Amino acid sequence: MDCLGDQQGRSSSASVLARCCSWEAVQRRLPFLYWIPKYSLQWLQLDLIAGLTVGLTVVPQALAYAEVAGLPVEFGLYSSFVGCFIYCLFGTSKDVTLGPTAIMSLLVAVYTSSDKSLAILLAFLSGCIQLVMGLLNFGFLLDFISYPVIKAFTSAAAITIGFSQVKNLLGLKDIPRQFVLQVYETFHKLSSTRFGDAILGFLCIAFLLALKWVKDHFPRTYRGMPRCYRFSYIIIWVTTTARNAIVVVAAGLVAYSFEVMGLSPFVLTGKTAEGLPQFHLPPFSETVGNRTVSFSEMVQKIGVGLFIIPMMGVLESVAIARAFSSQNNYRINTNQELLAIGLSNILGSFLSSYTVTGSFGRTALNSQTGVCTPAGGILTGLLVLFSLEYLTPLFYYIPKAALAAVIICAVAPMFDMKICKELWKVKRIDLLPFLATFFLSFWEIQYGIIIGILISLIIVCIPVAQPKIKTTDTGGLHMMVMSGLSFPAMEYLRDAIYKTAFEVSPPRSLNLDFSHVNVLDYSVVIGLQELIHEFQSQGLSLSFSGLQSEVLRILLAADLDGFKHLQNIGSGVHYEEECTEPLLHNVNKSQNH
Amino acid sequence: MDCLGDQQGRSSSASVLARCCSWEAVQRRLPFLYWIPKYSLQWLQLDLIAGLTVGLTVVPQALAYAEVAGLPVEFGLYSSFVGCFIYCLFGTSKDVTLGPTAIMSLLVAVYTSSDKSLAILLAFLSGCIQLVMGLLNFGFLLDFISYPVIKAFTSAAAITIGFSQVKNLLGLKDIPRQFVLQVYETFHKLSSTRFGDAILGFLCIAFLLALKWVKDHFPRTYRGMPRCYRFSYIIIWVTTTARNAIVVVAAGLVAYSFEVMGLSPFVLTGKTAEGLPQFHLPPFSETVGNRTVSFSEMVQKIGVGLFIIPMMGVLESVAIARAFSSQNNYRINTNQELLAIGLSNILGSFLSSYTVTGSFGRTALNSQTGVCTPAGGILTGLLVLFSLEYLTPLFYYIPKAALAAVIICAVAPMFDMKICKELWKVKRIDLLPFLATFFLSFWEIQYGIIIGILISLIIVCIPVAQPKIKTTDTGGLHMMVMSGLSFPAMEYLRDAIYKTAFEVSPPRSLNLDFSHVNVLDYSVVIGLQELIHEFQSQGLSLSFSGLQSEVLRILLAADLDGFKHLQNIGSGVHYEEECTEPLLHNVNKSQNH
Repeated sequence: MDCLGDQQGRSSSASVLARCCSWEAVQRRLPFLYWIPKYSLQWLQLDLIAGLTVGLTVVPQALAYAEVAGLPVEFGLYSSFVGCFIYCLFGTSKDVTLGPTAIMSLLVAVYTSSDKSLAILLAFLSGCIQLVMGLLNFGFLLDFISYPVIKAFTSAAAITIGFSQVKNLLGLKDIPRQFVLQVYETFHKLSSTRFGDAILGFLCIAFLLALKWVKDHFPRTYRGMPRCYRFSYIIIWVTTTARNAIVVVAAGLVAYSFEVMGLSPFVLTGKTAEGLPQFHLPPFSETVGNRTVSFSEMVQKIGVGLFIIPMMGVLESVAIARAFSSQNNYRINTNQELLAIGLSNILGSFLSSYTVTGSFGRTALNSQTGVCTPAGGILTGLLVLFSLEYLTPLFYYIPKAALAAVIICAVAPMFDMKICKELWKVKRIDLLPFLATFFLSFWEIQYGIIIGILISLIIVCIPVAQPKIKTTDTGGLHMMVMSGLSFPAMEYLRDAIYKTAFEVSPPRSLNLDFSHVNVLDYSVVIGLQELIHEFQSQGLSLSFSGLQSEVLRILLAADLDGFKHLQNIGSGVHYEEECTEPLLHNVNKSQNH
Repeated sequence: MDCLGDQQGRSSSASVLARCCSWEAVQRRLPFLYWIPKYSLQWLQLDLIAGLTVGLTVVPQALAYAEVAGLPVEFGLYSSFVGCFIYCLFGTSKDVTLGPTAIMSLLVAVYTSSDKSLAILLAFLSGCIQLVMGLLNFGFLLDFISYPVIKAFTSAAAITIGFSQVKNLLGLKDIPRQFVLQVYETFHKLSSTRFGDAILGFLCIAFLLALKWVKDHFPRTYRGMPRCYRFSYIIIWVTTTARNAIVVVAAGLVAYSFEVMGLSPFVLTGKTAEGLPQFHLPPFSETVGNRTVSFSEMVQKIGVGLFIIPMMGVLESVAIARAFSSQNNYRINTNQELLAIGLSNILGSFLSSYTVTGSFGRTALNSQTGVCTPAGGILTGLLVLFSLEYLTPLFYYIPKAALAAVIICAVAPMFDMKICKELWKVKRIDLLPFLATFFLSFWEIQYGIIIGILISLIIVCIPVAQPKIKTTDTGGLHMMVMSGLSFPAMEYLRDAIYKTAFEVSPPRSLNLDFSHVNVLDYSVVIGLQELIHEFQSQGLSLSFSGLQSEVLRILLAADLDGFKHLQNIGSGVHYEEECTEPLLHNVNKSQNH
């Protein structure tokens, strides 16, 4: 039982407190208490292999994604270990691994303009927002983001991120960040391509693609396999799985050799900060030049990113958790996931991390390697800490083109246009939010997402906007609304009433039967008030019948001028029969004034 | 009949063409053809009085609103006459008067940063968007903006606009535009108030308030009134109605007297362009310094304003038209209104107008004065043209504090917080979109509006997200979904299925009865695919029954892997009885691969 659940609204505060402090509640908030008592040596073995595998992927990816975020490479690693430890304690999915991702890095670049202090502050604030959302059980908000919107955003992000790396692949300089200008300038400056970078970059891509192909097409291992086969199998598996690390190390060695020979054919990563990040408060103000930028100015700079980044972070992580929980047959708790990711971001920000979320690629790797519990993340985290402590001096020689190749190969599968064909075949109207999100995302990411969500919600609301209305004319004019009335339906109802009552001669009084109306919002109340006045001004009356108690409460609370309602004997479901002898309750307020 | 209506989808193109060119269609597109044959001398008289009255209000307001938009004062007048003439031909409401308004001026200031060329281009583009929306019958989109969102936005705008004039009222300089900074700087610089401006400004406000009070409390005229009473009544009516013009003229005279004496106690409007605006193409590029800003750069600068401004323009105008048509018992045509306002903006932009929309204050004045047809607007337009041709040299002497007073008195009634109490009483959840829109509008107008709309749509969708589900267990496990399934409902359905089928031991196969499901979207299809896989992975099956033809088409088009459906004999409404002997149609795709 969740101590913040809405079912407990009516219980006494003492019992709520008791339930909050119960063992179940503690277990719910610290899910590792579920699996730790059952932990076995076999699980440990599998978790260690998975942790190591993910670690070998996260280190090169972290360096590359920091580049996407426009931050120094060490920030990628700073962001890669806190999530592993925190998620192990608070996460509800065994597969998810938190850390820097391509999309989150892109968003951070957009909303912080690659300012370190802003990025760290944003991680802290996003974490707070996610934590509060989790504590308030706001996870349901994620259900209002439709699949076509997510797909369109991901595809657009894949193109944006992939293209942003073309400049590093070709060694181009002074390329602006805005997508349209970037495409223009990249093509404009194509002639100043540095051949060293381009050759290395394309070689790395070819290598990564080849290793991926081998991984995908390699036959699976089986029990009775001869030992020599088995051994070569393991070598191939390790090579293909750790391909990012291998490519980056190889490219680094090549670059080092050239440097030793006194040649510099590649743009290198260059000097990076060494050692572990220091633990200190996130920066609540910063000094630029000789001016102090205050907290409120920093928040203003981040702007709508403060809404988009926590939402997208949670969305990405929860979508991945749902996908793998569904594949591996376990259940996740959305609100607890929110909590875990929020805490990771908050604590991370004390260690110079930028915003983290669930990584699809590494989560898939984790799952395939056969991870048993989130404990696998501990080894991943330790591996990142080890790299930070001992390997940073070596990062100097990593060519930027090699990191660009890693990113391009990582985001390419995110681009998926087959869905267009699917949508055309299955449900054409869902192409609208897809296309709107896709194209607007190139212009400004937030408008892509928000307007996509808006359009998909409007599509959902179209049936709500056209409630079924039954008109009967036995003696008086009766109109029965067959479902709840929310604001999108008001004009439709008004039209129907005009056609029935006013566009006939002579105009007629009307009785509105609300027996099936269980929802009524303020905009509708205002609309009904206007309708009552229109009927009054023509010397006619608009009365209501079959009001359910909540609807009656709303209409009475609104103190409608000239409101009349007929109280039915009975439930009001079989309207025509029961309404022959209604009791007239005239609650005409205008006469009381 | 409308030639673009969706009911005509199936008729032949020839008959559509015939209908488009019919007399009714022409009348629908040129609504003045309805009233012109009936036009009488009495109507002319009333229209002339109304046109004159509105004209006396629009001239001072236009000067003041141009100041809000951050444009030279003559631009207010340039924007005040085209709409009058166009609306007379194309408008469907007798009361609405198009022209510059406080809110539209604020939006223009925000999105064009007070750049003349941008403002004119924006008018042209907004007009095109509104025209296309009208031609495509997209007026229904306005129904998705709820009353609390409109109210919150208007109240926030009233504060923003009113406060933006405090600097002119007090003669302060170098006040930034952003609201928070503006408030801070205004209070910061309070000590450098110019006393001349402040005294004049507050006197003007006092005068305007007094005259408004007299107008509101003056007894109505009646038939047997003695002539002398009647005469004084007319004088008072004219004085109170034309109070804006009187205050501005009086303040101008005072300022002129001081100038003649060699004193300058007031900040004056200063030199304005004289004469009528020239007719030329809207600026599709502009030259700033020695650089040419291209069309695409201009559009980028306007940004999301290109979406917000046409929508808000239409919303404001249609909301006003609806309010007065309801009050005066006639009907408007939303799509034709879109057309009229779109054409006004397009043609206006050829005459250096910025974006126009319906003005609430002047429309109310028009209606109260007893206008009979939109022809009243012609005199208003002529009066504006007269002012432009002959009065512009006099505008030099108008003190800015007097214009500030006019604006503050015009926007003050737009601020309405009583609605908070109403919402609390009537429907508390509607406070959410209200408060979100209100507070976010101070930060950035577009987020206020868009996020307000989003929240109110989510509230509408909450019942959609929790469809009623009936579970029966007679032999097999059956689950009946009682309404359409859209994406917000997917997680809810998944939860219900987990609880029923998986969280029991042993887990069980399930039959989903979709007899009541008439809507199904792509996100739900993807969710169902995942569910089918989960059942399969446990060696169980998920089958469907009672599929309506459209739902079946969608599911078949989606080519679901492992999709099975039972075809019912009969309608499927009385599920339990009919499902006893279903015909099993196994459409298991996985076996065909």
